[in-house]
Amino acid sequence: MAKSKKNTSTLNEKKGVLQPKSLNEVVAERHKNFKKKPSTTELVSEILNQNQTALSQAITIIESTAQKHQQQAREIIEKCLPHANKSIRLGITGVPGVGKSTFIESFGKFLVSEGKKVAVLTVDPSSSISRGSILGDKTRMEELVKEENAFIRPSASGDTLGGVARKTRESIILCEATGFDVILIETVGVGQSETAVHSMTDFFLLLKLAGAGDELQGIKRGIMEMADSIIINKADGENLKAAKLAKNEFNRALHLYPAKESEWAPKTLLCSALKNEGISEIWEVVSNYFETVKTNGYFQHKRKEQNKFWLLQTIESRLKSEFYANASIKIELEKQLKAIDENRTTPFEAAEKLLTLQK
Amino acid sequence: MAKSKKNTSTLNEKKGVLQPKSLNEVVAERHKNFKKKPSTTELVSEILNQNQTALSQAITIIESTAQKHQQQAREIIEKCLPHANKSIRLGITGVPGVGKSTFIESFGKFLVSEGKKVAVLTVDPSSSISRGSILGDKTRMEELVKEENAFIRPSASGDTLGGVARKTRESIILCEATGFDVILIETVGVGQSETAVHSMTDFFLLLKLAGAGDELQGIKRGIMEMADSIIINKADGENLKAAKLAKNEFNRALHLYPAKESEWAPKTLLCSALKNEGISEIWEVVSNYFETVKTNGYFQHKRKEQNKFWLLQTIESRLKSEFYANASIKIELEKQLKAIDENRTTPFEAAEKLLTLQK
Repeated sequence: MAKSKKNTSTLNEKKGVLQPKSLNEVVAERHKNFKKKPSTTELVSEILNQNQTALSQAITIIESTAQKHQQQAREIIEKCLPHANKSIRLGITGVPGVGKSTFIESFGKFLVSEGKKVAVLTVDPSSSISRGSILGDKTRMEELVKEENAFIRPSASGDTLGGVARKTRESIILCEATGFDVILIETVGVGQSETAVHSMTDFFLLLKLAGAGDELQGIKRGIMEMADSIIINKADGENLKAAKLAKNEFNRALHLYPAKESEWAPKTLLCSALKNEGISEIWEVVSNYFETVKTNGYFQHKRKEQNKFWLLQTIESRLKSEFYANASIKIELEKQLKAIDENRTTPFEAAEKLLTLQK
Repeated sequence: MAKSKKNTSTLNEKKGVLQPKSLNEVVAERHKNFKKKPSTTELVSEILNQNQTALSQAITIIESTAQKHQQQAREIIEKCLPHANKSIRLGITGVPGVGKSTFIESFGKFLVSEGKKVAVLTVDPSSSISRGSILGDKTRMEELVKEENAFIRPSASGDTLGGVARKTRESIILCEATGFDVILIETVGVGQSETAVHSMTDFFLLLKLAGAGDELQGIKRGIMEMADSIIINKADGENLKAAKLAKNEFNRALHLYPAKESEWAPKTLLCSALKNEGISEIWEVVSNYFETVKTNGYFQHKRKEQNKFWLLQTIESRLKSEFYANASIKIELEKQLKAIDENRTTPFEAAEKLLTLQK
């Protein structure tokens, strides 16, 4: 929107300010010269070439519930796995209104300026009902989305938290294979999704606001305990004093918790995402954390534990999807649901009938 | 502890007051004359004879993780099912300290005095970690437990909420077959367990306290929406005024929610469980509810929906338990977990190997 520098003559000023394009050219450029329906091999090879359009398409395949896509998704992941696991994974949570998007925009831009490639994913099981309650569209991070080295993907949808979590875990693999070295995983600050995000990240960052008068009360104990760092956002202007008080209060509270297995002492920090203040300090803390846990072996240990958990989750989701995909079971399930509706059977009897068909 | 009425002579007074027995005779009596390891047929026949010891034993079998018990559990449930479904099922929730145990003691005794047979079950997934955080032992309802027509069973334990919920659902069937006509299902007022309890009860009762200054803030929206009645407990003495104010506030809040599918307008009531005040009014509201929903068909509709949900839950838990019970899978699982530990495989590869063994 700035005036063109060359036009300093008064005559040329009449041209007026430049109008913004209706198309985001940076994003559009990435989509050029790429097939609409590439094969698995093409897709993987483009992912390894750091092609974000291929990454997007692959994530869409992972998120699909169609049987043929599920098979393709498994192949893609298998081929990407040897190239994954090289990033650091940060979980970010906080109640609605705390400024998660603004924080991610500001933090993400800082990371890009430091030469990092940043991917943003979201775990929001509620969006399957309310459709896009957070991060519904990319425009919420309109500056970050323009960065060539940033990738933002709105929430995976799904019926269950387990399903959403699985898709996000698999998307992490693909982002890593595409060469992203910091993965930010955002979640809403309510419900069980924090536990899911905790199970797939290395570092957990809790965003808070000061001055609501319930500095400690409002936080679920479990979420406080998970945090590796508490960031008090909107610490600017008239808010600054309250934010400093809150920082002390959180620090006192954090000291009451037993020491973490990671041997890391969680830090409380102030920031103003809107004014880009306090961002580099947060990155410093995150970097210190990774230095600590990579030295003492906790990083490697935690990833292994997460992999074991993931193994069991993968098995259980496959058992279910294979069972319900069986054609004769599909037909019988409809019959049994109808029988329940007409009080002709019980859930146990119906389950027994369906389970027999499997063999 | 009262003096024996017959001993009115001063000479006899020297005998002193009667000492309490170390054994609760009422409870002990029920356990007499019953085998320690009855067969499935004996167990079911005793359950139908309203034998509470048999009921206890059957619930223990349901809660067992041993493979042979799981088979026996299914047989017991199958045989009890034709005699079940005749009770009303009430879910009761509220944060720790709200007085759930005292309320259930008071409400339960009232129901017994009205000629009802009352069973109390608990859903508390946290107890599998903290062991008995609520209703850890029966002594918390020491009067109700002495009633011949009351049965109190502490929390089922389990690794997952799903597992705990399944056991509770099955225990409901057994309680109904034993002739209990009101089933109270208690849950802690935090986390996801309310949803589980809601999926197995007809009426949902939320206990609250007045005067904490956070009448509305402290309540998760989802739980408020589930409530068919809000009971403000400890509405006595100096608390009474605040309780009345809270009642108005809750009533206003309840009116803001959309109408329920049940066509029932949730009621807010005051009570003092400790002083047995307001208890019969609560029962009146509960009775009105059942009159409403049995007339408009919602009662039958909701039970059917719950049965469909239960069908899917039963299938999924069986798929898992059968998979992990397979001997060759057990051995391979150990190997694959070790391989993950030694970075020799990925969760996906490992899952694939295990899933192949199943076929």
